[in-house]
Amino acid sequence: MFDARTLKLAALLLAAPALAVLALAIPVAAKTITYQPQTVYFTYCYAHPPAARIASGDSVVTSTRDASNDAFLPTDTTLAPKIDLTKVNPQTGPFFVEGAEPGDTLKVHIDRIGLNRDWGWGGAIPYFGALAPEYKTMMLTPPVDDHLFIWRLDKSRMVGTLNMPKSKIGKVEIPLRPFFGTIGTAPKGKECISSLVPGPHGANMDFNEVVQGVTMYFPVFERGALFMLGDGHAAQGDGEVMGAAVETSFDVQFTVEVVKGKTIDWPRLENDRYIMSIGSTRPLMDALRLACASLVNWLVTDYGYDKMEAYQLIGQQAEIEIANVVDPEYSVACALDKRYLPR
Amino acid sequence: MFDARTLKLAALLLAAPALAVLALAIPVAAKTITYQPQTVYFTYCYAHPPAARIASGDSVVTSTRDASNDAFLPTDTTLAPKIDLTKVNPQTGPFFVEGAEPGDTLKVHIDRIGLNRDWGWGGAIPYFGALAPEYKTMMLTPPVDDHLFIWRLDKSRMVGTLNMPKSKIGKVEIPLRPFFGTIGTAPKGKECISSLVPGPHGANMDFNEVVQGVTMYFPVFERGALFMLGDGHAAQGDGEVMGAAVETSFDVQFTVEVVKGKTIDWPRLENDRYIMSIGSTRPLMDALRLACASLVNWLVTDYGYDKMEAYQLIGQQAEIEIANVVDPEYSVACALDKRYLPR
Amino acid sequence: MFDARTLKLAALLLAAPALAVLALAIPVAAKTITYQPQTVYFTYCYAHPPAARIASGDSVVTSTRDASNDAFLPTDTTLAPKIDLTKVNPQTGPFFVEGAEPGDTLKVHIDRIGLNRDWGWGGAIPYFGALAPEYKTMMLTPPVDDHLFIWRLDKSRMVGTLNMPKSKIGKVEIPLRPFFGTIGTAPKGKECISSLVPGPHGANMDFNEVVQGVTMYFPVFERGALFMLGDGHAAQGDGEVMGAAVETSFDVQFTVEVVKGKTIDWPRLENDRYIMSIGSTRPLMDALRLACASLVNWLVTDYGYDKMEAYQLIGQQAEIEIANVVDPEYSVACALDKRYLPR
Amino acid sequence: MFDARTLKLAALLLAAPALAVLALAIPVAAKTITYQPQTVYFTYCYAHPPAARIASGDSVVTSTRDASNDAFLPTDTTLAPKIDLTKVNPQTGPFFVEGAEPGDTLKVHIDRIGLNRDWGWGGAIPYFGALAPEYKTMMLTPPVDDHLFIWRLDKSRMVGTLNMPKSKIGKVEIPLRPFFGTIGTAPKGKECISSLVPGPHGANMDFNEVVQGVTMYFPVFERGALFMLGDGHAAQGDGEVMGAAVETSFDVQFTVEVVKGKTIDWPRLENDRYIMSIGSTRPLMDALRLACASLVNWLVTDYGYDKMEAYQLIGQQAEIEIANVVDPEYSVACALDKRYLPR
Repeated sequence: MFDARTLKLAALLLAAPALAVLALAIPVAAKTITYQPQTVYFTYCYAHPPAARIASGDSVVTSTRDASNDAFLPTDTTLAPKIDLTKVNPQTGPFFVEGAEPGDTLKVHIDRIGLNRDWGWGGAIPYFGALAPEYKTMMLTPPVDDHLFIWRLDKSRMVGTLNMPKSKIGKVEIPLRPFFGTIGTAPKGKECISSLVPGPHGANMDFNEVVQGVTMYFPVFERGALFMLGDGHAAQGDGEVMGAAVETSFDVQFTVEVVKGKTIDWPRLENDRYIMSIGSTRPLMDALRLACASLVNWLVTDYGYDKMEAYQLIGQQAEIEIANVVDPEYSVACALDKRYLPR
Repeated sequence: MFDARTLKLAALLLAAPALAVLALAIPVAAKTITYQPQTVYFTYCYAHPPAARIASGDSVVTSTRDASNDAFLPTDTTLAPKIDLTKVNPQTGPFFVEGAEPGDTLKVHIDRIGLNRDWGWGGAIPYFGALAPEYKTMMLTPPVDDHLFIWRLDKSRMVGTLNMPKSKIGKVEIPLRPFFGTIGTAPKGKECISSLVPGPHGANMDFNEVVQGVTMYFPVFERGALFMLGDGHAAQGDGEVMGAAVETSFDVQFTVEVVKGKTIDWPRLENDRYIMSIGSTRPLMDALRLACASLVNWLVTDYGYDKMEAYQLIGQQAEIEIANVVDPEYSVACALDKRYLPR
Repeated sequence: MFDARTLKLAALLLAAPALAVLALAIPVAAKTITYQPQTVYFTYCYAHPPAARIASGDSVVTSTRDASNDAFLPTDTTLAPKIDLTKVNPQTGPFFVEGAEPGDTLKVHIDRIGLNRDWGWGGAIPYFGALAPEYKTMMLTPPVDDHLFIWRLDKSRMVGTLNMPKSKIGKVEIPLRPFFGTIGTAPKGKECISSLVPGPHGANMDFNEVVQGVTMYFPVFERGALFMLGDGHAAQGDGEVMGAAVETSFDVQFTVEVVKGKTIDWPRLENDRYIMSIGSTRPLMDALRLACASLVNWLVTDYGYDKMEAYQLIGQQAEIEIANVVDPEYSVACALDKRYLPR
Repeated sequence: MFDARTLKLAALLLAAPALAVLALAIPVAAKTITYQPQTVYFTYCYAHPPAARIASGDSVVTSTRDASNDAFLPTDTTLAPKIDLTKVNPQTGPFFVEGAEPGDTLKVHIDRIGLNRDWGWGGAIPYFGALAPEYKTMMLTPPVDDHLFIWRLDKSRMVGTLNMPKSKIGKVEIPLRPFFGTIGTAPKGKECISSLVPGPHGANMDFNEVVQGVTMYFPVFERGALFMLGDGHAAQGDGEVMGAAVETSFDVQFTVEVVKGKTIDWPRLENDRYIMSIGSTRPLMDALRLACASLVNWLVTDYGYDKMEAYQLIGQQAEIEIANVVDPEYSVACALDKRYLPR
């Protein structure tokens, strides 16, 4: 069965025989696999048994739990004692993509993100968050008090509401823009890394542009790529500064494609308007350097730019997005309008 | 003589007697002063003799030189030898605003920014810029080679163009969005600080939202506030990552207002959609903390928010802008949509 | 069989009945195990099969390879092409210590470090080292050129010499002070982490005080603790700023002890004069915060200090050691003279 | 009147006519000036009228107030309300050194530091200190509570004692090692910078090796150098992590010398064993980079080292000292044993 996108590609191929070499990467019959997760994982790791083996071009319909592993009820008011710190940020997968080998790139199109419940939670988490003493920016003064904020999610209007009993405004209503906080492939070097930690393999970047409709690119470090995702966010400000977004569970459909022989160092994101490179590390400035240097190098290797001329263009036109400033590594995206890509 | 905006305010006051208390801050006859700069300054400092003494409500029409002190010709290809490092980032002013006292706030509306020449420059500056060895992130390997990029500026179409002879694309055209890189008041504590350094008094924040039409707020640390501005940028990406924007000279009109008895810690910016706090320091993460903590505190003191509820809102809805990552202190803005301000 | 130290402890116990409670932690018959490594590991990981199972109180005599996995000859002049980046920083172990459970502390005394060859290497490694563009502090300008420095090691005089043909001095001779760059236990949360990365479990701290005669304390996160060590350094300056020390292979003897029910967050080191806490993260300031906050908390929990009084003491008497500023996480030690520990 | 050191130099000159050119910088009759400060300054600034004009080779005997401007009594328990934040870190001077011109270096030998009272203070200062929310690392949680710690200073035994009523130990006694927290010359570029801020001109480095007997070198940015000093510390741990040392007033004698035509970028310190470069900025890692890169460059320009060979030596033998991690800029020293300086 062909989906519309695959048909479009096939049409292109018929019309342009010179592109036929690309056809090798196009499956003759892309499938849609439905996977109901029984097991979730708390590390990105080469050793996890695949949830499913899929082919390049296949689509997957599945669902994800929220970052607490669906531990809370909407009547809860604190994270403790329900939160189990060894069981946070559960991931659905991994999906073994046939033909993906180390050195390739995995392309993932996020076809659809669906809210599947009517509430989400945010939180004041002791020793977590950018504006309070933290597990790495450690201090001797007290951390924030444990507190759970329960947001009501209205799917029809795509808004979230939070009562604010202590504030003059009383209540706020925010637009929902659902995205995946955590998404990526197995790390390199046989490392098994907590799903809380973003890195070259993606994972917990908490980037609020990973919405329905975008295409992402991840390095393949292990055979089969071992793609996973989770940590649904109904909405989130830049940086996720308080440490949690509007955390909720999702239904999702995504489509994978193996880009053979294309090697990238860090995740990339493409939407209708921009190409973006994403870097993750601390300090924040180095995450920014990784993201923007990757974008310059991308312009050089794929689009024929001279390095210093590309640097000048980035200097005048880059849009820099702060994805997260609370996870064990911070994430920054460096974006450029696609108008600057030569045909 | 009243300008249109003052008349509008006057109309409002007539219609709304309850607002009459505000009238105390409204000058009876706001003037428009034209100032042709003969002298420029390279520090923000209490000791500079005022360029002009103006009243709250007055507007000023003046002009600014580019960051090189107008040293280059559009035929130049390097910064050396024309650049004089003791004479960079010249500022027009200071304007002594009658009635402004330490502890007050100076409100500045940028009425108009006009390009006044048809070219600007960008540059690869040795030991400057975010993606190369730098005067603070010092290294033993070589810095970038000195190189000047000359952009052609088309005022009618509001675009800039740069030839890129070494790149496949050959030439790029970017939208112009003129703004002031440097703008602020005299620092506190009788410090005299290079105009290259941003801080609580504003100055070289290089924030690409300081465009025509916005309103800014600066702390007043010295009698008269001693407002200055300069460093016109025809366009600039977030962070000004290569170290220079499209640098050019400007014509400008702005209007000042003293907000008596209102004390703020860091500069603020307001436009049609957002309120923003700006923080400047290194490392980048601390500039972000200053900006976002200021925004939370602003919501608490001026809009009746509970601190933790405001923190939660910022976590879910803040937009974080990277203003500069190349100056002696980095600058970050934390923005919130004005829909969240209670009436 | 008793070794000398165990006998000394036994003697102490006989002489001092008041200390008898300590005897519970002393094995009745501590053994010395000799282990000749056939396999080495490149991650710290719960999943590695133990090299040996040992008891609390046992000593181990073994050896370690150098950080290149003994890839070089002393006639080599560059790292490439011999270095295999998937095979660096090999570790000897893991040693499964009977009775060690998550939440306990593993105490390790380094009885003896012996140089076992007459040369070591240092290097200029592209994209590694504190004073050049780096894999995290990424830049667009060139990194250092690949170059191997071969040091001659004289065991009898305990000095290392390096010819410096391009320098006026011609040759330098430095004192040797052998220590382990990498030492630790399996990480928490079923993570498997490259041996290049230091963390709460220890590993690649590159701290030049981990010399013969010191006692170290590590958190136990996995049953058996799974202790490993490697990365011998014949000498190294603070911070290992060029990215490699005088790298060499070692013979070593160490003795382990399980401290039941004692939980620590970060590694500790004790020598004749000091107690030290070690923190590892980026940025450097946060590694310092972790180290010094841990030391304050240690004084509070174990020595009856009030937190603010302990902070004051640290402020006036801490000695801060920069262990490494080149690894994926930086390491800092915060030390206090033992004269300040109440009896 | 000649002092011993001047006579020794004169003897050298008689014995070595080839060095006669140096004699131009040697005063015929070095004097000792006694200066009783009436006025103190809170900025380092070109504009301050000199406290005295002295010649190269002259010595000055003077005194300094403590960092609070001698505001407290030993019976005080909090900093508020006595502290006046516009009057902290008062400096004695500036001393105009005849013949010092921009581009020269000022050499200062600290002949003697004398405690002149029997107590000093440390403090928990809200929004100050490395292990609590801070004016730059701003947070929304509460800062430390204002508290003054009064240390008794015993000059005969050179120890300080502090009662610790809340701690098991009850009282601690620490060795005194008096040094100047703040010392330097007027900044470049006509900046006037708070005496709290360290930089290329020195000032508030809070480096605990600036003790009696050392020699320091400062860049000269203004005619006469305009040397100042203050901020006496009877003792201080590395980094001054709580934000204040054991703060007290001093008597001091120092001797200046102009090194004509020698240009340095950052302060240097020399004692019997080490040469050291000092860098000041945030983040901490960049202060370390400035210090160590300066040291490498110093070895290259003054001692005939090849740059990469010097980098290798620094990697294996540098000692890195954390001077302060609490001031507006952090300070780090990079030290090398003088045994590595070729004769």
